[in-house]
Amino acid sequence: MTAVYYEGNGSFALGECAEQAPAPGEVRLEVAYCGICGTDLHIAHGAMDQRVRTPQVIGHEMSGIVAELGAGVEGFRVGEPVVVRPLDTRGETPADKGFSHISAGLKFLGIDAPGAFQRSWTVPAFTLHRLPAGLDMQLAALVEPLAVACHDVRRAELTAGETAVVIGAGPIGLLVALVARAEGARVLVSEVNDARLAFAQELGFETMDPSAVEAAERIADVVFEVSGAPAAALAMTQLASVRGRIVVVAIYPEPQLVRLFDFFWKELQLRGARVYEPADFDRAIELIAGATMPLERLISRVESLERLPAIFEELAHGTNEIKVVVDCRA
Amino acid sequence: MTAVYYEGNGSFALGECAEQAPAPGEVRLEVAYCGICGTDLHIAHGAMDQRVRTPQVIGHEMSGIVAELGAGVEGFRVGEPVVVRPLDTRGETPADKGFSHISAGLKFLGIDAPGAFQRSWTVPAFTLHRLPAGLDMQLAALVEPLAVACHDVRRAELTAGETAVVIGAGPIGLLVALVARAEGARVLVSEVNDARLAFAQELGFETMDPSAVEAAERIADVVFEVSGAPAAALAMTQLASVRGRIVVVAIYPEPQLVRLFDFFWKELQLRGARVYEPADFDRAIELIAGATMPLERLISRVESLERLPAIFEELAHGTNEIKVVVDCRA
Repeated sequence: MTAVYYEGNGSFALGECAEQAPAPGEVRLEVAYCGICGTDLHIAHGAMDQRVRTPQVIGHEMSGIVAELGAGVEGFRVGEPVVVRPLDTRGETPADKGFSHISAGLKFLGIDAPGAFQRSWTVPAFTLHRLPAGLDMQLAALVEPLAVACHDVRRAELTAGETAVVIGAGPIGLLVALVARAEGARVLVSEVNDARLAFAQELGFETMDPSAVEAAERIADVVFEVSGAPAAALAMTQLASVRGRIVVVAIYPEPQLVRLFDFFWKELQLRGARVYEPADFDRAIELIAGATMPLERLISRVESLERLPAIFEELAHGTNEIKVVVDCRA
Repeated sequence: MTAVYYEGNGSFALGECAEQAPAPGEVRLEVAYCGICGTDLHIAHGAMDQRVRTPQVIGHEMSGIVAELGAGVEGFRVGEPVVVRPLDTRGETPADKGFSHISAGLKFLGIDAPGAFQRSWTVPAFTLHRLPAGLDMQLAALVEPLAVACHDVRRAELTAGETAVVIGAGPIGLLVALVARAEGARVLVSEVNDARLAFAQELGFETMDPSAVEAAERIADVVFEVSGAPAAALAMTQLASVRGRIVVVAIYPEPQLVRLFDFFWKELQLRGARVYEPADFDRAIELIAGATMPLERLISRVESLERLPAIFEELAHGTNEIKVVVDCRA
């Protein structure tokens, strides 16, 4: 049993990995570890059944080893450790203005095409980023979510000495806070869940009371809204100081009430951020290799591929765990 | 009778101009023309009675002549034509990060301090911009609202060849459209009022049907929301193409429903814009002096100061007129 298939309606099944020889321009990988993302949980809730074709292997926060090269692939050797930037951008058109990572025809590997919760995974070579030799492969499974955080911080144009408020201390919120701190910012974390708040404090972050918005008015040069809470969409503009930047990281399916007056009065900016660009993966790998962040503390537990269907059921009931990583060789 | 005083509760009275000798650093002007702004109409509705101390002369879209220099004023001579950038920024603090035009302690001349609907007006010398000799003084009364438009377009970082949609073809919307066209953009105007729509077409603008948002999805590199309509706050993100910039020019007193999902999906930016900086006044003067815009067509009529109280009453019932200018010498 070396693959986990999503079968629709929130159910998963163990199965054989359909090992696929790499076509020209592709690379076959042996997957080492693959983390469980909030999007995977969303799929496991059945919420993306209109988008995900079944049966399908999902998963996209992976680390692995190059196992086989398709014709014409240069720059990689069998045995090298890599991660995948899971964006198939081959549908890009001029209307996308060169922003291939958010192109209208984008396919996300692990959602719109097979993913990494399997022993062997075949992907286009242009999605690969090489890892430094000797990098911990469990930590390397955090490159993808860390690249999300790097993208968010880059979109904010955050500079050393600025004050950032991160609203929401889930996995992405904490990674954003860690990257913002690595860039030299003062970081405050706002979180309603006591356990998550305590964990943010353990990681050394100042915290603020989410209900005390008035006391924190104009405190932030940059606000990262990662919570997805309607109250945060209302509060984010109050927290921002003059010409402050607000990066909306959370995905709000429905329109939200936003204080447009604050944008006028303080000349604020709101910037959307989605996935990442190659530079964000490079930065994430550099940050992990630099070993200055307590990233190992974000890995709540490591599980086997065989246990994954059961884990999705466990996590469906909610969790304070930050990141569950699956060993795809076990 | 050489001044018009706002007396509260939406009422105005003619009175004597309290001609004021310039203190050190100040300049006394003979006012030539002063336009009626939407903010003036707002005051005339009694909507700003909490902010405006009475009796007070309002008005801030003016042109005039230097009449008298206070001690220490350099760089200006009696008889020179000037306009006033009506921002008293002397309350600026480090918390304003150098953005004096939106500083927390900003005083707006004509709202928070006496304005220009009078024969003689005394202002700080740092608010003055010199006009080229021979410039039409009626047109020069449009420098201030045109500077608003220049600021909006600058905030958008609009470049030649881009497509801009301007929602709302009132005075500021039309000026934004004219400045955007002068910067080399393709400009579409969206307006629900037939008379205003027809006027935009007379000025040579393409127009779009505000209710046909789906047909215009992703059409704009830049959206200027100038209408203040809740439907426009919802539509603006749909009109924007990937990485599009949306400048909110309208003042929304209440929180509005905004599609935050579109910010995520297309990595949009929303930028607030308020008043102007000195460079915007310089650009506005340059544009008027260049005489390439049909600005004279925006002046609906010229009235005397004596008629101003009656005009405020007329305009209170709504108008399709673009700009009424008051001759403060008549």
